[in-house]
Amino acid sequence: MTAPIYNRVALIGLGLIASSMAHAMREYGLATEIVGFAKSPETRATALEIGFVNRVTETAAAAVQGADLVVLAVPVGAMGAIAAEIGPHLAPGATVTDVGSVKQAVIEAVAPHIPEGVHFIPGHPIAGTEHSGPRSGFATLFRNRWWLLTPVPGSDPEATRHLRQCYEAMGAKVDEMEAPHHDLVLAVTSHTPHLIAYTMVGVADDLRRVTDSEVIQYSAAGFRDFTRIAASDPTMWRDVFLTNKEATLDILGRFTEELFALQRAIRLGDGDHLHAYFTRTRAIRRGIIEAGQDTAAPDFGRGQPPA
Amino acid sequence: MTAPIYNRVALIGLGLIASSMAHAMREYGLATEIVGFAKSPETRATALEIGFVNRVTETAAAAVQGADLVVLAVPVGAMGAIAAEIGPHLAPGATVTDVGSVKQAVIEAVAPHIPEGVHFIPGHPIAGTEHSGPRSGFATLFRNRWWLLTPVPGSDPEATRHLRQCYEAMGAKVDEMEAPHHDLVLAVTSHTPHLIAYTMVGVADDLRRVTDSEVIQYSAAGFRDFTRIAASDPTMWRDVFLTNKEATLDILGRFTEELFALQRAIRLGDGDHLHAYFTRTRAIRRGIIEAGQDTAAPDFGRGQPPA
Repeated sequence: MTAPIYNRVALIGLGLIASSMAHAMREYGLATEIVGFAKSPETRATALEIGFVNRVTETAAAAVQGADLVVLAVPVGAMGAIAAEIGPHLAPGATVTDVGSVKQAVIEAVAPHIPEGVHFIPGHPIAGTEHSGPRSGFATLFRNRWWLLTPVPGSDPEATRHLRQCYEAMGAKVDEMEAPHHDLVLAVTSHTPHLIAYTMVGVADDLRRVTDSEVIQYSAAGFRDFTRIAASDPTMWRDVFLTNKEATLDILGRFTEELFALQRAIRLGDGDHLHAYFTRTRAIRRGIIEAGQDTAAPDFGRGQPPA
Repeated sequence: MTAPIYNRVALIGLGLIASSMAHAMREYGLATEIVGFAKSPETRATALEIGFVNRVTETAAAAVQGADLVVLAVPVGAMGAIAAEIGPHLAPGATVTDVGSVKQAVIEAVAPHIPEGVHFIPGHPIAGTEHSGPRSGFATLFRNRWWLLTPVPGSDPEATRHLRQCYEAMGAKVDEMEAPHHDLVLAVTSHTPHLIAYTMVGVADDLRRVTDSEVIQYSAAGFRDFTRIAASDPTMWRDVFLTNKEATLDILGRFTEELFALQRAIRLGDGDHLHAYFTRTRAIRRGIIEAGQDTAAPDFGRGQPPA
């Protein structure tokens, strides 16, 4: 138990990320009071029932009053409207952050509404599961995960230090980078892979009408992993692609180029090309294991009965 | 412990699948003796050292002598040459099966070498991990996994019944289907997803030179799953694509069509199209969970320290 870093935290949006932050803040004593707002009355009632907030408010403006930390945890496309609504009600000296998966678009949408004397420090926790909503949160979601901050020109170093301290207390590893660079890196590691997984699952769904339930019944490791990725929140992901358009389209272009080269190798029966390509991709996996982002333990599908 | 189903089992190839079969056969007492052959002397020595075979031989022909079950567990592209070599040495009444991920090409390559009086029953266990080699096997690999058999015209029902009984004793669920249908279903559920994962990891590898190690360091769930898939054995996968060429190219064609439609929606800012697509793909995930192929437990990345 450390001393509280913030006196009153306002969570705007009460889904997977916000509810996990609340659980973690309570567990580690990082906030004296947590106030929550969500558009849906049902979500607010659930948050109160689970008890990860001290109270909920009926408007976002009411939630941020007197808060020294305000977290925008709504889909990226909803950030601008929320910022416009809360802007006039933010307390002097407060810190405003967000947890959106895209950073440039959020900065463009939110920054104009942040008054003088309030610190805006955009952020993105690289953590999540395929579940969403207020019941899906848990205190350890951020353990050993990266939380990227993309401070804007003029961000107060002291406010940034406090936010970093709070996230590190939740178990996260915090790093800072420029927003455009963040968006490119995430387009490679997260956004494009998600789009591809959605596409493959969509193709299978079409074929399911042909092969009945066999596509599901015999779903092997490759496809099973894709369906898990493709089960993520549709609204969140729609907004990611609409707001990180340039980087995603750039990476998608490279992807289709490479895919066509492999497709051609298959058509021509060029086994050497395929073998060399598949050997090269093995190395990046080793890099990820060495970076501590996954383990080398074999994954033979979960849900298997114990030996 | 059931009574042994086979007296002498010959495993041709001693990688992940064959070594797992050997471990399982020993654990459940399904074979009196297990004889192993692998091209590499090092692999043979490892198999003996671990002790999952009773003995190894220096040729495939020697391994199959007197065996009542012969399992071809080599890459699909190597099946024909091995079948030609062992054909004249197979014992009358023996059963020959394989574990290849593609079935039509294996049947075409192997069947001509199977003498009268020997039963050829092609098969494919839908099980595996991203690891390969004789040290990667374990007895429970097939538990609760499907093992598809694609009997050829004239396959002996009694021999098929024995093989099914053996695989069920290892914990597998056994089903039978036509070889061409198998190859189409697997192109959707396994082969194309693997090619896509390899491609995405290859793209990231190119970009790594730009963004240093960040692509690895911040690898999020989507990409992390892809790298695991793309770490699979290059020789095995090269052969899969070369031998299941038509079905893979067919599914790849559908995939790029759908991908282009989504790419266009991103470019045009058509959020409704994206949202509808992502909502539809959620349903197939529910189907997989209901079919018992995965669990609904959230996957927040393995290798995380406990709470």
